[in-house]
Amino acid sequence: MNRDPKLDALRAQIDAADRELLDLLARRRDLVAAVGDRKIDLGLPVYVPEREEAMLRDRRAEAEQRGVAPDLIEDLLRRIMRESYRAEGARGFRCAVEDPRPVVLVGGRGQMGRLLHRAFTASGYEVRVLEADGWDAADQVFSGAGLVIIGVPIHATVDVIRACAGRLPADAVLADITSRKAAPVRAMLDAHPGPVLGLHPMFGPDVPTFAKQVVVHSPGRHADACAWVLQQWRTWGAAVVEVDAAEHDRHMGTIQALRHFATFVYGTHLMAADVDLERVLALSSPIYRLELAMVGRLFAQDPELYADIIFGSEEGVALARGYRERFSEAVAMYEGGDREAFLERFREVREWFGPLAEVMLRESSGLLAQARDRISGQ
Amino acid sequence: MNRDPKLDALRAQIDAADRELLDLLARRRDLVAAVGDRKIDLGLPVYVPEREEAMLRDRRAEAEQRGVAPDLIEDLLRRIMRESYRAEGARGFRCAVEDPRPVVLVGGRGQMGRLLHRAFTASGYEVRVLEADGWDAADQVFSGAGLVIIGVPIHATVDVIRACAGRLPADAVLADITSRKAAPVRAMLDAHPGPVLGLHPMFGPDVPTFAKQVVVHSPGRHADACAWVLQQWRTWGAAVVEVDAAEHDRHMGTIQALRHFATFVYGTHLMAADVDLERVLALSSPIYRLELAMVGRLFAQDPELYADIIFGSEEGVALARGYRERFSEAVAMYEGGDREAFLERFREVREWFGPLAEVMLRESSGLLAQARDRISGQ
Repeated sequence: MNRDPKLDALRAQIDAADRELLDLLARRRDLVAAVGDRKIDLGLPVYVPEREEAMLRDRRAEAEQRGVAPDLIEDLLRRIMRESYRAEGARGFRCAVEDPRPVVLVGGRGQMGRLLHRAFTASGYEVRVLEADGWDAADQVFSGAGLVIIGVPIHATVDVIRACAGRLPADAVLADITSRKAAPVRAMLDAHPGPVLGLHPMFGPDVPTFAKQVVVHSPGRHADACAWVLQQWRTWGAAVVEVDAAEHDRHMGTIQALRHFATFVYGTHLMAADVDLERVLALSSPIYRLELAMVGRLFAQDPELYADIIFGSEEGVALARGYRERFSEAVAMYEGGDREAFLERFREVREWFGPLAEVMLRESSGLLAQARDRISGQ
Repeated sequence: MNRDPKLDALRAQIDAADRELLDLLARRRDLVAAVGDRKIDLGLPVYVPEREEAMLRDRRAEAEQRGVAPDLIEDLLRRIMRESYRAEGARGFRCAVEDPRPVVLVGGRGQMGRLLHRAFTASGYEVRVLEADGWDAADQVFSGAGLVIIGVPIHATVDVIRACAGRLPADAVLADITSRKAAPVRAMLDAHPGPVLGLHPMFGPDVPTFAKQVVVHSPGRHADACAWVLQQWRTWGAAVVEVDAAEHDRHMGTIQALRHFATFVYGTHLMAADVDLERVLALSSPIYRLELAMVGRLFAQDPELYADIIFGSEEGVALARGYRERFSEAVAMYEGGDREAFLERFREVREWFGPLAEVMLRESSGLLAQARDRISGQ
């Protein structure tokens, strides 16, 4: 390293400024914790999108006045707030009901089950777990429960729901968290005469907090009696979106089954072509690195889960067939060197995407910039 | 909004802390600018990965001591440094040579051309542009040039290189920036007896700075005489990677041609299935939002560029055929409901990925967390 006294002095000042930043973060963390305590006292929700947006708008305007990039302060504050949500979750959450009754997690030893276990416990609920080997004592486990959540693999869901028939308190909410909704909701309505609620948390068990995550719910029976469950998710910071069960399953064919299937096929292709991954990564721009990481991450996860999602989708096979057709057409065009047909089809798709294409370009460009921040020392 | 005096007071303190953060950013920006000036005086490179990594390690350790999450301070400092690189770029860069001779950009009015124009100008070079309509005065434009860069569409590259034959100063470096390397480097060696250098900047014209970007170079002739060009890229902060032209083209078949082709096909599929994009986005977890954005961003860009990349690849058609085969096999497996075959193939691919699968899961999880920070007010 180069030894220049003036340069060294300036660098020392930068390091001092960065240590000040650390102090500021520690101070802000304590203030946010105090706000959290006060909110719990007052029974207010933790995540208030309007206050967050108003605050960011104010800081952006002030940044502009001081010649600091508004995007910089917004990105920093969003990152700091993410940390606050996580800290909040670790300290416990308000309970959405006055007098909480026990929550039963059927399949509570799975990854999602453990996540829910922690969340309900942190909010003051008694959580009971029912696993396959515990059904002898099921009546005891269900006794007095206010909520029973089925969180078993998709292919077992309907059978497990049937096994609950006639055993739950009449006013308990029966819910599931499977990634399909029509069949489980039907089975729950058959098995339980009381309140029924289909849920689909749109995230994996690796999320640091529920803040800003999407939870889909499909109505079953007695929406009023189910409302507190949704309120509890909102208290955790989640966005709750109502979707009819059949519509949900149709969209999930695209969002989950086909997408994971296509990623799986791409992985098999890389293997068959024996692509030199290390070399390819070294040559890759951030966008391809990221796309490749999206493929690799699939294979680092549970194959059974992906088999459930892909083979559990009724629409998936038809979608995959359609995709294969598009693929064959496009390869024929490629083989024929038909550049004009490519350009024409490209423009058609662009028109079909409409203004969303530009929105997606902007959204992904921001993320790619963040991907670059992390690449260092190359 | 809820009016509680204690809560209001705490929120006011948080806002005050965030304004302090703004002050700190303004102060740090000035310090970094002073470091930049000093580095230019001393002739030192702007981006020093070792100093950056050492600094981050120190701040992480200090964060731990104060109970601040080390990942938080690292993410914040990386974001702040990105802003510094951008500011640095806007202030001008050191010139890699003592006595710079003019740089000629053939096709300088394109997007990449304009980007290079700004960069060379900011570093003190005289930049001259030669477009298709300017060849009458070409000898004057080339006169005295130290570097001639061919930056025209792939399909025109070889013809434009031939048109340069016998017109450049004997000691000028002839370089191209096409996304293929074998054919252009061959053509440049034929057209110019002096120094020849194949370049491929692995990024699009929308990057905010060259810092941390990858630039591939394939050797042509007189590497010593070309060294200053690579040094100039390093001064701009880029990572320069040497790859043989044939190997480069083989990898690019996978990195660019096949990947863009597959994304194109997925777009045509979404259109053919008439997927309700707005609704799908509302229901999507961050990972699918991001994957969809990667598809949408393609169609927001120049169709000609993608046609050039896809149809310009010699390996692309064979790769696309192989991919189609994998697709047909997988659809047959899907149609047959062959869950076991899926699981077996999944595990094979996982093994083939090796430890990289876990690395990619971690890398993408960090990015997905950042994607979530930006989703607000839902």
